[in-house]
Amino acid sequence: MTYRLILLRHGESEWNSKNLFTGWVDVDLNEKGVKEATRGGELLAEQQLLPDIVHTSLLRRAIHTAYLALDKADRHWIPVRRSWRLNERHYGALQGLNKTEIREKYGEEQFMAWRRSYDVPPPPIDRDGEWSQFNDPRYGDIPEGERPLAECLKDVVGRMLPYWESDIIPDLKAGKTVLVAAHGNSLRALVKHLDEIDDKTISGLNIPTGIPLYYELDENFKPLVKGGRYLDPEAAEAGQKAVASQGKK
Amino acid sequence: MTYRLILLRHGESEWNSKNLFTGWVDVDLNEKGVKEATRGGELLAEQQLLPDIVHTSLLRRAIHTAYLALDKADRHWIPVRRSWRLNERHYGALQGLNKTEIREKYGEEQFMAWRRSYDVPPPPIDRDGEWSQFNDPRYGDIPEGERPLAECLKDVVGRMLPYWESDIIPDLKAGKTVLVAAHGNSLRALVKHLDEIDDKTISGLNIPTGIPLYYELDENFKPLVKGGRYLDPEAAEAGQKAVASQGKK
Repeated sequence: MTYRLILLRHGESEWNSKNLFTGWVDVDLNEKGVKEATRGGELLAEQQLLPDIVHTSLLRRAIHTAYLALDKADRHWIPVRRSWRLNERHYGALQGLNKTEIREKYGEEQFMAWRRSYDVPPPPIDRDGEWSQFNDPRYGDIPEGERPLAECLKDVVGRMLPYWESDIIPDLKAGKTVLVAAHGNSLRALVKHLDEIDDKTISGLNIPTGIPLYYELDENFKPLVKGGRYLDPEAAEAGQKAVASQGKK
Repeated sequence: MTYRLILLRHGESEWNSKNLFTGWVDVDLNEKGVKEATRGGELLAEQQLLPDIVHTSLLRRAIHTAYLALDKADRHWIPVRRSWRLNERHYGALQGLNKTEIREKYGEEQFMAWRRSYDVPPPPIDRDGEWSQFNDPRYGDIPEGERPLAECLKDVVGRMLPYWESDIIPDLKAGKTVLVAAHGNSLRALVKHLDEIDDKTISGLNIPTGIPLYYELDENFKPLVKGGRYLDPEAAEAGQKAVASQGKK
């Protein structure tokens, strides 16, 4: 018995293309992102990897991606689960700011620490600031003290893993093909756990947008093949390079 | 303590506009239907009737309507539940056929009996026919003997009410504003139950597409005001007349 897990990072968003830190700001897909999500659904259909249930974050770009991909694969009717625990990393006070400007203002080292270090969170966001979600009703169920004001990847691992254990693993155990439609950093957190990637190495791992990543898992929910398999390996390689170069001029 | 329930019939579909019996055939919204669904979401937002959870059928036109309306109302992130018990009435052997042609071939009386009588189902569909959903994996959980091959409105009431009791009422009890995004006949079945409409009178009741119908319910889950309140009463009246005239030349 093996288990089937498919990870899907949302397509390009209105702010990916503007080179802004997004985090929990709830922007939609741009035109390219819509195409990527639809292409993701085509890949699922072509390779007959048809999800029985989907888990999404609470953010529009992941929800929209799941909707488009599932509609294309004729699996729009499957059950849906959502959780803030699958949200993108909260980028704190950097949310809404330009990546290139941050890099120039604070220097390469600080920029990369905020962007890629495992355990250095950015400065916390002002609770009542323009780009804060602290008072958004969708997060009202999170106790105030646990509601993030900034997160490093380690924080994302810490809040994502309980959901993996409590909500995703039971669906896998039930024999379902599970789709997780989420974000660059919540999926990196999950991949880190699955592939047992150390805290340093994870900083170099990029997940491309819109290309389903398929994992077959053993009885301990560990991958049969480390790293899984992208349903379009060539496009994945090109996409990973594009992610890595973000914030460069 | 009162409970808040919002019913939303999907916008016009590709087959509504072609004047075909649709039933369980999984057609999408047409351009007008997309606009109607979006307008439905605007009405929810304008009147601050914001759903906390949505229940949909397993059919694309209801799922798409819910997606568009909730996205517009900025409630795309709420939990989603789906059930075949909210599906449109199964139109049996009439699925895929033209309403005007059926009327001409079988006469007004038989046409209206199939279309509007409470307890006369159309002829059953051939299980393996072009427009049958008998072998569709999405209905695999329904025991074969219970999987519809044709339904009258009474059948729809019979399979919808258990879901109302087991899945929707608990959400209302929990204090949630519940949106049900479904179909002309599954919503007529629910309205018949809520407003205690008799088997004859229900035949004259039409539910317009894309206009949210709001019910405030008492402690027995009965409406404070019979018939509820359409969020756009003028458009609802025009829409009801349009539904009543379907199949006429």
